[in-house]
Amino acid sequence: MKIVKTKEEVRAAVKEWKAEGLTVGFVPTMGYLHEGHASLMKLAGENDRVVVSIFVNPMQFGPNEDLASYPRDLERDSSVCEEQGVDLIFNPEPEEMYPQDFSSFVDMTGPTEELCGSSRPGHFKGVCTVVNKLFNIVKPDKAYFGQKDAQQFAVIKRMVRDLDMDLEVVAAPIIREEDGLAKSSRNKYLNKEEREAALILSRSLQLGRDMLEAGETDVAAIVKAIEDKIKTEPLAKIDYVKIVDASSIKPVETVKEQVLVAMAVYIGKTRLIDNFIFEK
Amino acid sequence: MKIVKTKEEVRAAVKEWKAEGLTVGFVPTMGYLHEGHASLMKLAGENDRVVVSIFVNPMQFGPNEDLASYPRDLERDSSVCEEQGVDLIFNPEPEEMYPQDFSSFVDMTGPTEELCGSSRPGHFKGVCTVVNKLFNIVKPDKAYFGQKDAQQFAVIKRMVRDLDMDLEVVAAPIIREEDGLAKSSRNKYLNKEEREAALILSRSLQLGRDMLEAGETDVAAIVKAIEDKIKTEPLAKIDYVKIVDASSIKPVETVKEQVLVAMAVYIGKTRLIDNFIFEK
Repeated sequence: MKIVKTKEEVRAAVKEWKAEGLTVGFVPTMGYLHEGHASLMKLAGENDRVVVSIFVNPMQFGPNEDLASYPRDLERDSSVCEEQGVDLIFNPEPEEMYPQDFSSFVDMTGPTEELCGSSRPGHFKGVCTVVNKLFNIVKPDKAYFGQKDAQQFAVIKRMVRDLDMDLEVVAAPIIREEDGLAKSSRNKYLNKEEREAALILSRSLQLGRDMLEAGETDVAAIVKAIEDKIKTEPLAKIDYVKIVDASSIKPVETVKEQVLVAMAVYIGKTRLIDNFIFEK
Repeated sequence: MKIVKTKEEVRAAVKEWKAEGLTVGFVPTMGYLHEGHASLMKLAGENDRVVVSIFVNPMQFGPNEDLASYPRDLERDSSVCEEQGVDLIFNPEPEEMYPQDFSSFVDMTGPTEELCGSSRPGHFKGVCTVVNKLFNIVKPDKAYFGQKDAQQFAVIKRMVRDLDMDLEVVAAPIIREEDGLAKSSRNKYLNKEEREAALILSRSLQLGRDMLEAGETDVAAIVKAIEDKIKTEPLAKIDYVKIVDASSIKPVETVKEQVLVAMAVYIGKTRLIDNFIFEK
């Protein structure tokens, strides 16, 4: 496994592989890798070669967000990648990705507008721009994203379709701790009490899933039940609880086809997200 | 030479060529081809295969601009391409490029802000988006643009650099009528009197060039002389006359390095552009 810092090194490696007719799978990450990321790398193993990028992308953090404190541990990350048989880690410095007079961006209306799009203005512009760049550098056959960032997956899928990027984007299931908490690099911020309180996300989602499986189709009723459940947890503060069309991320009033039930909840100062997709 | 309407057909042709190790040159156009376009195709002949796109891109026209009346003539365009040894024309319908729920875009700060960027809001967003898509569809080794759209060239070059697109963009010199008028599909709009009046663009630019070559470095003085000259033509109305850094398209006060002297002038209802680059 090689770790490289420059685009040129990635390009050279990929070019060589492609010349040999090998396929390339790609897992873009911000590092501090957990079992969720490992599951993406495992999936990417269906390709001949696997590239992982580790880059805490400044452009997708808002001015009051956790860019500076976002956890980083390249050494540990490298062993996770090594274990999963990754061939190449791309770990650029911000200057390698954004030269001083950098001025282009990729953005989107539609799927970016609800959920995290409204609570994190500019977030998806940063995500689209960096992922667009990474796709152009790595030129993967397939790229892998976690279903935990369900809206991010819908946004990337739309960008690839709209801009005619020649690759397939694949979503992988959410990986959870034994007690149900969705794995996240941000779980590291939680103290013991908050860690316990954070279970309210998966538990309240389970309540929503139970209602849907029992045949409830009224979105407002399901959202209210979930919110009421979250409010029983004193350390939790709701950012949003929403039920939207899973591919357009547009609000729905009645559950008809495939919906995404998604939430962002602050536990203390830590903003956590979780979701599931329900097919009627 | 083949004319195709779908992205899939382009992809299939290019894939075959690349598998044989052939290089691909690309000339994106809005059709109604003139000698300027032909000169780009001739240059593109340095590649093994040449693709031309003919697509009047709705996204780069403002609501009060000439989208509906923009001249179209596929038959004549085909013979121009045929003569230049073009291998493939991509002539999509708008629906092929923009499905109903299309929602992504590429845009830019910096080089888009002056000149046509301020008089045609949204124009470069449309240009960047469609060119980004076309690059992803055609995957050329090199793409060719006319120096006549000097700002467009600077913008595309910046987009390719910023988004790490793997191709080279090449600018080709302005092609002029014998009397000096820069070739443009929009020249077709001019009646006989306006055609004569339109010479004020190249003539006033020549005045600016004379001043620069004589050593004048004061941008305000040169711009004023050019504007005064244009004002002697009653059918002409200045949109802008500007001298900017040729690569960043930022205003300069004194001519030091490479500058772009650019103008947009209405002759009657027709908006024409012209420019030259001066290296001190």
